[in-house]
Amino acid sequence: MHGFSRSARVLNPNRLFCHSRVKHLPRLALRSFTHNAVLLNHSNPSPSSGTTVSDPESLRVKAREHAVSFPRRTHHCGALTLQDDGAKVVLAGWLLAERKAGKTWSFFQLKDSYGSAQLIARVGPNATNDLLAAMSQAPTESAVMVEGIVHARPENQCRKVPSGDVEVEVMNFILLNAADQSLPFLPSRADKLGELPSEELRLQYRYLDLRRNELSSNLRKRSEVAHIVRNILHSEGFTEVETPLLFKSTPEGAREFLVPTRISTRTGDSSSTSGSLTSEPLFYALPQSPQQAKQLLIASGAVDKYYQLARCFRDEDGRKDRQPEFTQIDMEMAFVSWGEGEDAAQNPNTDQWRIGGQEVRDVVEKLVRTIWSKVEGVELPERFKVMTYAEAMSRFGSDKPDTRFGSEIRDITNYLPQTLRHVLASEGNILEALVVNKNDHEAFQRGAKKLKKSEVEQTQTGVNRIDVNSANLLNWSKGSQLIRDSIDPDAWSTEDMNSFLGVTPGSTIWLAKRSRIPEGGSTPLGRLRLALFEEARRIGGLTLPPEPHFLWITEFPLFTRADEDKEFLAHGRWSSSHHPFTAPMRQDVEKMYNGQINEVRGQHYDLVLNGVEIGGGSVRVHDASMQEYIFSEILQLNKSETASFGHLLHALRCGAPPHGGIALGFDRLMAILCKTETIRDVIAFPKTGTGKDLLFQSPTPTDPTVLEQYNIQRRGV
Amino acid sequence: MHGFSRSARVLNPNRLFCHSRVKHLPRLALRSFTHNAVLLNHSNPSPSSGTTVSDPESLRVKAREHAVSFPRRTHHCGALTLQDDGAKVVLAGWLLAERKAGKTWSFFQLKDSYGSAQLIARVGPNATNDLLAAMSQAPTESAVMVEGIVHARPENQCRKVPSGDVEVEVMNFILLNAADQSLPFLPSRADKLGELPSEELRLQYRYLDLRRNELSSNLRKRSEVAHIVRNILHSEGFTEVETPLLFKSTPEGAREFLVPTRISTRTGDSSSTSGSLTSEPLFYALPQSPQQAKQLLIASGAVDKYYQLARCFRDEDGRKDRQPEFTQIDMEMAFVSWGEGEDAAQNPNTDQWRIGGQEVRDVVEKLVRTIWSKVEGVELPERFKVMTYAEAMSRFGSDKPDTRFGSEIRDITNYLPQTLRHVLASEGNILEALVVNKNDHEAFQRGAKKLKKSEVEQTQTGVNRIDVNSANLLNWSKGSQLIRDSIDPDAWSTEDMNSFLGVTPGSTIWLAKRSRIPEGGSTPLGRLRLALFEEARRIGGLTLPPEPHFLWITEFPLFTRADEDKEFLAHGRWSSSHHPFTAPMRQDVEKMYNGQINEVRGQHYDLVLNGVEIGGGSVRVHDASMQEYIFSEILQLNKSETASFGHLLHALRCGAPPHGGIALGFDRLMAILCKTETIRDVIAFPKTGTGKDLLFQSPTPTDPTVLEQYNIQRRGV
Repeated sequence: MHGFSRSARVLNPNRLFCHSRVKHLPRLALRSFTHNAVLLNHSNPSPSSGTTVSDPESLRVKAREHAVSFPRRTHHCGALTLQDDGAKVVLAGWLLAERKAGKTWSFFQLKDSYGSAQLIARVGPNATNDLLAAMSQAPTESAVMVEGIVHARPENQCRKVPSGDVEVEVMNFILLNAADQSLPFLPSRADKLGELPSEELRLQYRYLDLRRNELSSNLRKRSEVAHIVRNILHSEGFTEVETPLLFKSTPEGAREFLVPTRISTRTGDSSSTSGSLTSEPLFYALPQSPQQAKQLLIASGAVDKYYQLARCFRDEDGRKDRQPEFTQIDMEMAFVSWGEGEDAAQNPNTDQWRIGGQEVRDVVEKLVRTIWSKVEGVELPERFKVMTYAEAMSRFGSDKPDTRFGSEIRDITNYLPQTLRHVLASEGNILEALVVNKNDHEAFQRGAKKLKKSEVEQTQTGVNRIDVNSANLLNWSKGSQLIRDSIDPDAWSTEDMNSFLGVTPGSTIWLAKRSRIPEGGSTPLGRLRLALFEEARRIGGLTLPPEPHFLWITEFPLFTRADEDKEFLAHGRWSSSHHPFTAPMRQDVEKMYNGQINEVRGQHYDLVLNGVEIGGGSVRVHDASMQEYIFSEILQLNKSETASFGHLLHALRCGAPPHGGIALGFDRLMAILCKTETIRDVIAFPKTGTGKDLLFQSPTPTDPTVLEQYNIQRRGV
Repeated sequence: MHGFSRSARVLNPNRLFCHSRVKHLPRLALRSFTHNAVLLNHSNPSPSSGTTVSDPESLRVKAREHAVSFPRRTHHCGALTLQDDGAKVVLAGWLLAERKAGKTWSFFQLKDSYGSAQLIARVGPNATNDLLAAMSQAPTESAVMVEGIVHARPENQCRKVPSGDVEVEVMNFILLNAADQSLPFLPSRADKLGELPSEELRLQYRYLDLRRNELSSNLRKRSEVAHIVRNILHSEGFTEVETPLLFKSTPEGAREFLVPTRISTRTGDSSSTSGSLTSEPLFYALPQSPQQAKQLLIASGAVDKYYQLARCFRDEDGRKDRQPEFTQIDMEMAFVSWGEGEDAAQNPNTDQWRIGGQEVRDVVEKLVRTIWSKVEGVELPERFKVMTYAEAMSRFGSDKPDTRFGSEIRDITNYLPQTLRHVLASEGNILEALVVNKNDHEAFQRGAKKLKKSEVEQTQTGVNRIDVNSANLLNWSKGSQLIRDSIDPDAWSTEDMNSFLGVTPGSTIWLAKRSRIPEGGSTPLGRLRLALFEEARRIGGLTLPPEPHFLWITEFPLFTRADEDKEFLAHGRWSSSHHPFTAPMRQDVEKMYNGQINEVRGQHYDLVLNGVEIGGGSVRVHDASMQEYIFSEILQLNKSETASFGHLLHALRCGAPPHGGIALGFDRLMAILCKTETIRDVIAFPKTGTGKDLLFQSPTPTDPTVLEQYNIQRRGV
């Protein structure tokens, strides 16, 4: 019925909202429900004319048609079963395209938010009583109500979908709200054919796009998961607390949204209301996370365990698949442990979780296990694996390793000639190798070839690539600048190394140095390993393990060498790797006070799923003196910066308990559960990558007189 | 131990955060758990000195004390029962004031977020092993951990509180985090004595105030109620959907918060980055409610029933007990009815709910009934009462009548002489009376006397007060300007009127005119009735019904005569009483199109509890033509105003179903359930009435360079 043509379906936005299109659609009013009769009241049965008019009289005529009373629904469209055979039902939903079954009857799909039902409509006894004609004339995607009788479908026509065993013989039809004849696109057609208009068009008409089964099912799944999360946390004794969104601007302000308020003029002295002398404008800020509020809450003792599905805000350059507002499952717990005693840490029977916060780990694992069990039908192990940051960086070159495949990185320092080992040691470096061998999956071997001189390989500075063949098998190190620079490669056979790495002719080797004490989120070889995996995936044939790989990463360095880009909290040589409230590992407290800053590990933990970080948290500093030491002695904050954390320091001094928590990225989690690449598909009304809302058309300029109320104005005016 | 003196406890905020106070508190580390021995490790047992120092070395010394490992809790303080008699337990919480039981032993209360337990501490064998001394020296409100043995209390010492049957003999004591010796105030003391410091001080140190039992119990109750709400709505098939907080500025902007964004410079053309030519600043706005988003969501068909505990924002002059951010239980449902058919409306057996949206009513009543049943233990009736706006205004002079007491207003027009009746009729008015008679409760009679010439009585313009005595019993109308102006009161006996109103010597009568078709939220007599009630309450002796009085108000006028104050949506003579998306009553659709605007009733419903409006909603307009007619013909919006609703109008044209919803004020509901006068007591981190956050110190000025990033600057600079 309705052809699908992208360009033709785009309504002219300039014309769209100025005029009403009067469509003389049949007016169908309910009279009574009679089994054998089709009772329709057609007034003005001419088809939609498409004429554009805007005079009040036609608005009147049009609108009156829909001010009717109608019966209550008896069932949802997806809820009919063979049990309902013979029952009279009232259904409501959206009328989808007609499928002609014969000259005198047709099938229609009726879809609602729960599923769809097959309708059968037959031609009526005369023109003014013709149910089939009325339904045929109703535009696709119109909101309608039908009354009818449920019949079992012939067995060979049953379908394995909700309501797939039955069909509904329509006895009465009410057009509740006719859809325009020319919609920007037809969601039902997109559902059926998988042909999606551009994302821009779909975001602009999000209310149509959300009608697609995929998006509506994502929204329902999101609600379901949120409910599971809340139920578990409640049963674990958590208290849901709402923290302020109109928060205080912090020294981290660069990524904050400011919110000007009229409060200055409301409470300012009256002398400033005239002339050019205005009060200083005042601002709230939208929080990037409820971190400070939740710590104060736990410090207060008001709740022992806090949670919130918290809206957070970040005003930053549109990074890939980020939204300026996002949601996290935010938790904090009082009296979490500070790590087991020395004995336990040395006990080989405990797993690698040696930091505090086990209570947080327990809850998160329970939460995730329950979600996967209920939503995915997958039973996860009782305990998730734990890996230290040092191990993750060594084996995978990443602090969020994807452990679904091998191709691990190897430290080859010990197989190098002594001269080279000494050079590396003096630099504080080690030499690592990533190797693809003949016994690796063919996709990886082909991927390795494709990577050669690819952009991704080229941008990994300091990486040497060597393609091993029978000619260079024992002196392939010649191909490495890194080795050549320090020793004569001809004087050294790679035989032992080959045996260690499994290298044979046809192998590909990448070599790179890295700092012995790992830093940052990834190494060049770690990035290459992921690029290799992506290539192999594209090539196909890889079988990834079906079960999700959850992994905790712990023992991150607490401080990171300050980067010039980061102005905040980096007056000295060090900045906090995560945030300045993270506690040091108990075992490293002395190191922190002794100036061995780069060796101090924090009580931070990240939860990683298939190489994606889905959450992170830590045990916090609860001792005001320690927090102050970190602020002033390590981060070298000035007085006014420290003062901006004054309420937190004082709260710690009021007997704050040891505490810790975590935040899980809810949008990212849902994108994984909904098997979609973008979080926009799991958010009802998302913004574009650059923060534009194409539906509500925001952000927008505002009137200068509005700005005046806030004592601000356009710059340079 | 700690005296309570308001002024003395206020820390000097200028000094507070600059320096650490080194307190050489006992360092108590756990060794092992031995039944008969008190194992303490005191190093440096000198009491807190209060000396203010800030050198790094003392920060180090201080902080190391607390970097200890400690055992997991076994119980919450409020969870111990006689069943635990003899058990070894580990408890954590805040140590409260000591009560000496004898020379060698003392009681302490240990409090956590769940309750408190009584501890017994005994003097140790020697000075370095003295558990009692260590606990006595620990400042009140310190975070501590104890290990001990549970003992049943002597029967006469049991108390009817959680853990009231037992006490815990302390075997080991760990000072987890010592509180300052001089806290701004002691929450435990406030709990015990009910002496509250000023609200300003409590808001500034909210993390201490929240430790009070009252506030922490309010937060837990709020979480509990939110959970009940969510569970019911989920079981009713609702889908929780998060709607955008970074929304679009609407023409109603006067009460909105704007949010400037850097998006303009990010995406602007490069030519504008230098010189004084800057891009135009762009703004999101924080929504006052998710009204538009939820209507689009339902229009989309993605979800059939939507809910959200939605954060909403309003930037307005601090009205009594308002917050700039607040929470509402927000719902919307597809395919809600548009009211019963004519037959049903005339059926005397149906109650007064004659509008549509019965589905919303059903859900809300179930929600409220369940909350009251679970939280208050009160079983509410299956159906809440329904009253039309007209009846509420006539009987109570209010659209949110408090029906817990009588003193109803009476229309006395028909008892007036014909001349006066004609005058009133020509004005379109009626004359009403509020009367306090001898058989009314004494508190009301005394209240009526107290009101005489009180401010509240004086400010009700056009109200005549008459005190009836035996001398003026039959011609008290002389005392009324309203009557005197039109007739000769001596020529008219009030005898019939007295009998109608029950007036006898000693009665007090207030008379006032009002428009025959009621308007607005209250009448002068309605306000007087409430003032009378407040006086009577203050006087005391009134017995209010114990059960809450829930009441639906329906059939509000859809449009209100435009008020000069309201610029928005009031270009013509009319503005929307609630919002422009509210549907007219089906029975009044023709009147709307025929220009009888003042007679059109809307499908709006308010839920009122004990005279407080706790929620409101409506069936919405789902027909684009009707919505456009309201915008352009009745509200007389101009094109750009109408265009700002373009997405909504277009969504209606895409086959939007009939729909309706409601929003309940969650903060207000919780204040009622927590029996507190202010919503600040049910919000974790509230702002003052003028929108200031005294804890986080917001709003604040910001740096001009920060504003530059948004292309704005301070006005007049």
